[in-house]
Amino acid sequence: MAVTTTKEPIVKPGTMWAMQKPNAGPGLVPTTVPIPGVGEKDVRIRVTAFAICGTDLHIVEWDGWAQSRIRPPLVPGHEFTGIVESVGSGVTLVKPGDRVTAETHIYCGICYACRRGLLHLCENVQILGVDRAGAFADFVVIPERNVWRLHPDIPEEIAAILDPLGNAVHSALAGPVAGLRFAVFGCGPIGCFSIGVLKAAGAAWVAAIDKNPMRLELARAMGADMVIDVARGKATAEVLRATDGRGVDGLLEMSGHPQAFRDGFEMLANGGRVSLLGIPSKPLEIDVAKEIIFRGAQVQGINGRLIFDTWFRMEALLLSGKLDVKPVITHVLGWSEFDRAVELQRSGKAGKIVLTRDRP
Amino acid sequence: MAVTTTKEPIVKPGTMWAMQKPNAGPGLVPTTVPIPGVGEKDVRIRVTAFAICGTDLHIVEWDGWAQSRIRPPLVPGHEFTGIVESVGSGVTLVKPGDRVTAETHIYCGICYACRRGLLHLCENVQILGVDRAGAFADFVVIPERNVWRLHPDIPEEIAAILDPLGNAVHSALAGPVAGLRFAVFGCGPIGCFSIGVLKAAGAAWVAAIDKNPMRLELARAMGADMVIDVARGKATAEVLRATDGRGVDGLLEMSGHPQAFRDGFEMLANGGRVSLLGIPSKPLEIDVAKEIIFRGAQVQGINGRLIFDTWFRMEALLLSGKLDVKPVITHVLGWSEFDRAVELQRSGKAGKIVLTRDRP
Amino acid sequence: MAVTTTKEPIVKPGTMWAMQKPNAGPGLVPTTVPIPGVGEKDVRIRVTAFAICGTDLHIVEWDGWAQSRIRPPLVPGHEFTGIVESVGSGVTLVKPGDRVTAETHIYCGICYACRRGLLHLCENVQILGVDRAGAFADFVVIPERNVWRLHPDIPEEIAAILDPLGNAVHSALAGPVAGLRFAVFGCGPIGCFSIGVLKAAGAAWVAAIDKNPMRLELARAMGADMVIDVARGKATAEVLRATDGRGVDGLLEMSGHPQAFRDGFEMLANGGRVSLLGIPSKPLEIDVAKEIIFRGAQVQGINGRLIFDTWFRMEALLLSGKLDVKPVITHVLGWSEFDRAVELQRSGKAGKIVLTRDRP
Amino acid sequence: MAVTTTKEPIVKPGTMWAMQKPNAGPGLVPTTVPIPGVGEKDVRIRVTAFAICGTDLHIVEWDGWAQSRIRPPLVPGHEFTGIVESVGSGVTLVKPGDRVTAETHIYCGICYACRRGLLHLCENVQILGVDRAGAFADFVVIPERNVWRLHPDIPEEIAAILDPLGNAVHSALAGPVAGLRFAVFGCGPIGCFSIGVLKAAGAAWVAAIDKNPMRLELARAMGADMVIDVARGKATAEVLRATDGRGVDGLLEMSGHPQAFRDGFEMLANGGRVSLLGIPSKPLEIDVAKEIIFRGAQVQGINGRLIFDTWFRMEALLLSGKLDVKPVITHVLGWSEFDRAVELQRSGKAGKIVLTRDRP
Repeated sequence: MAVTTTKEPIVKPGTMWAMQKPNAGPGLVPTTVPIPGVGEKDVRIRVTAFAICGTDLHIVEWDGWAQSRIRPPLVPGHEFTGIVESVGSGVTLVKPGDRVTAETHIYCGICYACRRGLLHLCENVQILGVDRAGAFADFVVIPERNVWRLHPDIPEEIAAILDPLGNAVHSALAGPVAGLRFAVFGCGPIGCFSIGVLKAAGAAWVAAIDKNPMRLELARAMGADMVIDVARGKATAEVLRATDGRGVDGLLEMSGHPQAFRDGFEMLANGGRVSLLGIPSKPLEIDVAKEIIFRGAQVQGINGRLIFDTWFRMEALLLSGKLDVKPVITHVLGWSEFDRAVELQRSGKAGKIVLTRDRP
Repeated sequence: MAVTTTKEPIVKPGTMWAMQKPNAGPGLVPTTVPIPGVGEKDVRIRVTAFAICGTDLHIVEWDGWAQSRIRPPLVPGHEFTGIVESVGSGVTLVKPGDRVTAETHIYCGICYACRRGLLHLCENVQILGVDRAGAFADFVVIPERNVWRLHPDIPEEIAAILDPLGNAVHSALAGPVAGLRFAVFGCGPIGCFSIGVLKAAGAAWVAAIDKNPMRLELARAMGADMVIDVARGKATAEVLRATDGRGVDGLLEMSGHPQAFRDGFEMLANGGRVSLLGIPSKPLEIDVAKEIIFRGAQVQGINGRLIFDTWFRMEALLLSGKLDVKPVITHVLGWSEFDRAVELQRSGKAGKIVLTRDRP
Repeated sequence: MAVTTTKEPIVKPGTMWAMQKPNAGPGLVPTTVPIPGVGEKDVRIRVTAFAICGTDLHIVEWDGWAQSRIRPPLVPGHEFTGIVESVGSGVTLVKPGDRVTAETHIYCGICYACRRGLLHLCENVQILGVDRAGAFADFVVIPERNVWRLHPDIPEEIAAILDPLGNAVHSALAGPVAGLRFAVFGCGPIGCFSIGVLKAAGAAWVAAIDKNPMRLELARAMGADMVIDVARGKATAEVLRATDGRGVDGLLEMSGHPQAFRDGFEMLANGGRVSLLGIPSKPLEIDVAKEIIFRGAQVQGINGRLIFDTWFRMEALLLSGKLDVKPVITHVLGWSEFDRAVELQRSGKAGKIVLTRDRP
Repeated sequence: MAVTTTKEPIVKPGTMWAMQKPNAGPGLVPTTVPIPGVGEKDVRIRVTAFAICGTDLHIVEWDGWAQSRIRPPLVPGHEFTGIVESVGSGVTLVKPGDRVTAETHIYCGICYACRRGLLHLCENVQILGVDRAGAFADFVVIPERNVWRLHPDIPEEIAAILDPLGNAVHSALAGPVAGLRFAVFGCGPIGCFSIGVLKAAGAAWVAAIDKNPMRLELARAMGADMVIDVARGKATAEVLRATDGRGVDGLLEMSGHPQAFRDGFEMLANGGRVSLLGIPSKPLEIDVAKEIIFRGAQVQGINGRLIFDTWFRMEALLLSGKLDVKPVITHVLGWSEFDRAVELQRSGKAGKIVLTRDRP
């Protein structure tokens, strides 16, 4: 089954190209949709590159989560970069021509969480490309306060993936790092990014854990000191041996896999930190007494990115050369190769795939 | 079945009375055992009062946990107070005659946790009355560095229960409290204590949740603003209604009950704190994605007490009159009523029971 | 010299009564000024009560600070409450008729501090009644995002002083409180408020330090456990004696007085917290080595209030009955008694003075 | 004046070589003193290398601080490494032959600070070589609990300077670092070390500030992104320019110089961190209102090292290769060159000087 067809639609005035899910069911269709209007505080961005997130794959495949959350028709896509094309009358922070990307958690600003500064935990959050029209299109519209102006030294393919990189920065920096030891479960793009961030932040040792050898290679390229293929057995013993029995001071869970929750805590030093980002597909069994309580573990749910604290630190890490995420970007394709990108990503034979505009 | 028999043994010189578990199986037996010797850095305390903890009930009943952890013969007991009777040659902090109690987590001082100051998370911890001879006896021996000298204004029955009260203080003060709203799951003695601590620390509102009406009454006496009997249904809706839909800022889990883990997080505001102290009897299912990750929850395993930070703050709360835990101490009995105390506690018709010395 | 004259001006249509500083120099003049216009995101509030802050006294007196900061003509006043009279077309949070007050630090939302969530430390902050037209008037205009809707149970005179009370809440709760000991230097209204907040938050002991006996009485009424008149000598010895030589765990500096900086740290336990709010009139000598470095002190500059974290917690403390600030409000006068209020406040014979609308 | 004379004394049985201050006045004298005895919990170490700290220079020069604190006769020296020669009967952590160094703040373990885990802020601290016999000698005696066993991969000259390196690690890691910008005032050895630690911990940008060109070169070698010679004027403008006007997120004060306190805060972003380690020679004037309060600065006194949290993280940073401090060790001399080392250090023409044993 081809989940998408990339035959190019003909674009009429006032409309634009977009990859759309027209109705409930698998697949995306290249089509034309009206160019979205610009509210007073909105910014319309001409998308120049985007990337496909795991969330997008769920939407393409129309799995249980997608069925419960997505209301077609919808243009997905929330990892992107572009150029400001027009701005609403009340916009002051950016102007047409600015290179930008965006914090794609559109927060309400007025709920209990937002009013206490927890914008990334907004109770009424709308996620771009999930709850409202996204970036797999010629244009995307974003509220001004969510727009992030790019530094000129940030290259295009990095600019397109600051959203997932921000997840990694938020996770890695959610506790002390320098001079400490870590395990990262799950070496998809965010897992690999977070390895890079940990090492940039002075982690003394990082073990990367996955069952996909290609991903473990990427993890190694991002600086992992040890890579462990769990297809060959539990990682706990190896990690304890490598840490003189102390275990790791912190654990980043980026896989959502039950085994990580079963095995992961065993390698955690007492009082250690556990940052949970990977989304398990269903409720999981946890030995709360042994793994959390007696261990004095500090377990954090990680969602989105700190707005904009994470962004400032991410930019600074990139510009300083401390953090190089290029190894994770294994493919740069054109928009017309959308289908191939989806297949590559599904196959587990790619890291991050960036698709740059190849349309007039 | 009488789990214990309290017929008094005859005490010979060099021996002492003790409630002992002589061998694998249910029950405790009053008996005589040798008076424990005093090492150079040890303190021998003449016990004047003790209390029975939930842990002690597990040991009496010889449940799965007890079978896996306890090596009979053992004298249990870790909630107590007494008078220093003799000290080792190297002891400088206390002297015979001093009124004392003790931090009953005997820490090694040299493991990775201890050397970083996490004494309460010692990897080699020995718990008094669990891993070594405890306080249900005429005398108990404690390393000097675990002894806590009592302020003269702390009454006897409070002095006997500073160990579990310390659990409550540690749990309640493990995050911000003043001006925030809380739910406490489980209104056994530690749950009730923690309600008192939360209110003393300025909690604006505390909901107490249990299915035992008598415990809910104690919770009310300790200052709970709302008590919810979960025998009559889920607590979530009531809590959300009472908090204008915001939910609670913090949640203390003192029950170990699966329902608390199923329902509890639903009433937690985004970014809220969850302090876990109650020990579930087996692994539990948790909807990690919904309850922890998307909520940005901060989940902490709480073990023991901060040594001695928790003790200083606990003492100050008591002496200042901010914290009054007397309502939770529903019975003060004599040692000869040990069996009755066990039965009362099992029946759920008691809060904390303190047994004071009634032997010559 | 009468610093103000309260002869009532005649108010023409489109204008309103206001206490204004018409030009550089001491005093305020009751006058009429145009009713301020309402921008799209603005809220115009009919002021029903206001209070006079120490800052306002500086403006009245036209001291060095006022000369350097204030650009007349200016209507001062930033402690107030009122009723929403009209709102801009883009306002959604409040509507005419709502009882409100406001966070009077008008933040820009786009500077480095604001974008990292430190709204209270905005680099371009405009303070109501200092940098823009304030609340000593029939009407005041505030950006919607600064407005705080009042709970119906907050009485009028409290509603008028939530701004300085918020300073106290922010200061007191800027570190752990429960079971700890504190000293508060300076028992003006904010100092007295902070004593109340500390006690509500479980402070075990609070020493209040001032040289004005009337203020020390207010401090006592707010719950101070010890009051020390520094007119009779240094407070250090008394505090150390009362704390068994340990000193205080935290110190709130609300006086701006050099003596507090000289003596205060001496009574601070090692590792203790120092929250600085009182504004010294000029640079001060500090023995950095002895008082900060060797002591391992944690010194915080406190500015404004956390937006709106402080507000939520303050409201909850008030509504729960944990915090009662009425003793500090020594006078409730009418607007026509503005001069008298200024004189009372200057004389040091008042706590907080609230002036309620007595005009048609 | 030669402050020391290095003519070698003849060592009799039971005595050892030491550099001693025999009585009040400038200079040190090589002499023989009795070999110190070993208490039950003590460890006697055969010193193999030591280094000279700024504190030691004060003692040599007999300045005001030294006159007030030092009670001759005294053997100074607290930066050292060696081999365990003998241990008391109660010692279990190390054995003769172990390569070690030590935490040289000998803490009491029983004061209010120690009992709350703030060992580095012990109220009764005895500093090796200041308050008790130090390491400028053939042997030094340390309580077992202060001894740190060296990893075999830590080279001798690094092992000798873990004490000051620990100061730097403690200072740098006393707040978030990764992706943030810093200024370091004072580029003596600890300042230079801290630059290395900041960069290892992911600091995006570090400005080093001093007036000694040679020290600025060392700072550059340790990774400073910008070096500023304050002999040529205030550093503020340059730092603001280089940070796009934002200023630095953190400031490490390692100089003790009044100018740093005058200029330093001006370059601090609102809400920034200031870690103070350099000891000013006298009280300093600080514009508390402008520099601390309105800026919302977080100012920390930094003393010693976290015991042993700092040590674990320091070791891990060194072993991982993240932190290379060799550039700061400009000279490795023999003990017989003690005088020359003192002169070099005084002249400002050296970084850290390590003196290795050159005696039989």
